Amino acid sequence: MQLYIGNKNYSSWSLRAWLMAAKSGVDFEEVMLKLDTPSFYQQLKGISPTLRVPTLVDGDITVWDSLAICEYLNDTYLAGEAWPSEPKQKAKARSIANEMHSGFNALRNELPMNIRATRCLQLSDAAKKDLKRIDEIWSQQMHEYDTADTGGWLFGTWSIADMMFAPVVMRFRTYGIIVSDASRRYMAHVAECPTMQRWIADALKETDIVDADEAGVEL
Amino acid sequence: MQLYIGNKNYSSWSLRAWLMAAKSGVDFEEVMLKLDTPSFYQQLKGISPTLRVPTLVDGDITVWDSLAICEYLNDTYLAGEAWPSEPKQKAKARSIANEMHSGFNALRNELPMNIRATRCLQLSDAAKKDLKRIDEIWSQQMHEYDTADTGGWLFGTWSIADMMFAPVVMRFRTYGIIVSDASRRYMAHVAECPTMQRWIADALKETDIVDADEAGVEL
Repeated sequence: MQLYIGNKNYSSWSLRAWLMAAKSGVDFEEVMLKLDTPSFYQQLKGISPTLRVPTLVDGDITVWDSLAICEYLNDTYLAGEAWPSEPKQKAKARSIANEMHSGFNALRNELPMNIRATRCLQLSDAAKKDLKRIDEIWSQQMHEYDTADTGGWLFGTWSIADMMFAPVVMRFRTYGIIVSDASRRYMAHVAECPTMQRWIADALKETDIVDADEAGVEL
Repeated sequence: MQLYIGNKNYSSWSLRAWLMAAKSGVDFEEVMLKLDTPSFYQQLKGISPTLRVPTLVDGDITVWDSLAICEYLNDTYLAGEAWPSEPKQKAKARSIANEMHSGFNALRNELPMNIRATRCLQLSDAAKKDLKRIDEIWSQQMHEYDTADTGGWLFGTWSIADMMFAPVVMRFRTYGIIVSDASRRYMAHVAECPTMQRWIADALKETDIVDADEAGVEL
């Protein structure tokens, strides 16, 4: 199984699929293609119909899009365990994962993932609204699930919902977004996850610059 | 079960969830809230955390986001049959459904769903690229599945992938987009589906105008 991803410092969509694959314990080969280079498109030609990352190739099966890859791995290798089992919680997890997947355009445009950076930005009202909604989602879930008995993920144990929000945690750190105490606990939990630490360590070793993702004034 | 939707003429995200519920044969009450009115937000308060449509309320379970609603109905009432059963095809269906769900921003911005209208637009290169990719997806699936034995949907029988693309079919009709013969067959198949015909008939009865969705010069 090959997972094609972009630069770990920048590729927020790749992080979701990679984290899912890594946390699932499936055996996969990671193929990192440098964003915005001619070889990126050359190598994806004939592999991904969208010429985008992440793309997963599992034998004769190809899956593109971060959430589709999470669902595929969950169906195929995890017997569905990457969603909460209780129906009401599963519905909520799917709702927030899909809300993240299709929305938050201002956040995406104004606060690109850039793990190595620390930035101070002037944000639009639309971006502030996105940030507030995310703080609300995280803090509500922490109030419900972050007890001594559970694991600090959005629904106690990790789920696909956490995969969807992992790049957002990285963005909030880069841009110094001030969040509720509960959301801060969640962000720390995600960032300190050993699998996530492997991604961050690799990201920090990268030296390529993607200009489009270098928003803001360096401190 | 209540499904909260917006104006049928305009609300592309609502159409997906409504079509899924209607084609699934589940018993649901449709609650139409007029977009961009104070009562829209008042009525959704306490029901949907995003104050957006579609939102599905099934007893004590609330699901928001169009794709999450499709997945919920499929899990809960259709035993998973709204995705193709063959793993390779299921992976492809999920990939294109999610590609549609998270992408095609130029299409969304420049060609709003407006069922009653006929419009001629100047399109950006980004929008043209979106339209070409959609034509490619539809025509590839028709070449594979549109035979005498199968049903004319993207994967033969209807699936969640078709729900995701149904509003796009409506947009292509409104803006007179020229597509391949195979895609034209798909568009006709979707538009002529009796369930879709019910939605279109309701849309044509509506008289409210949402200015933000009235793109283009009337012919």
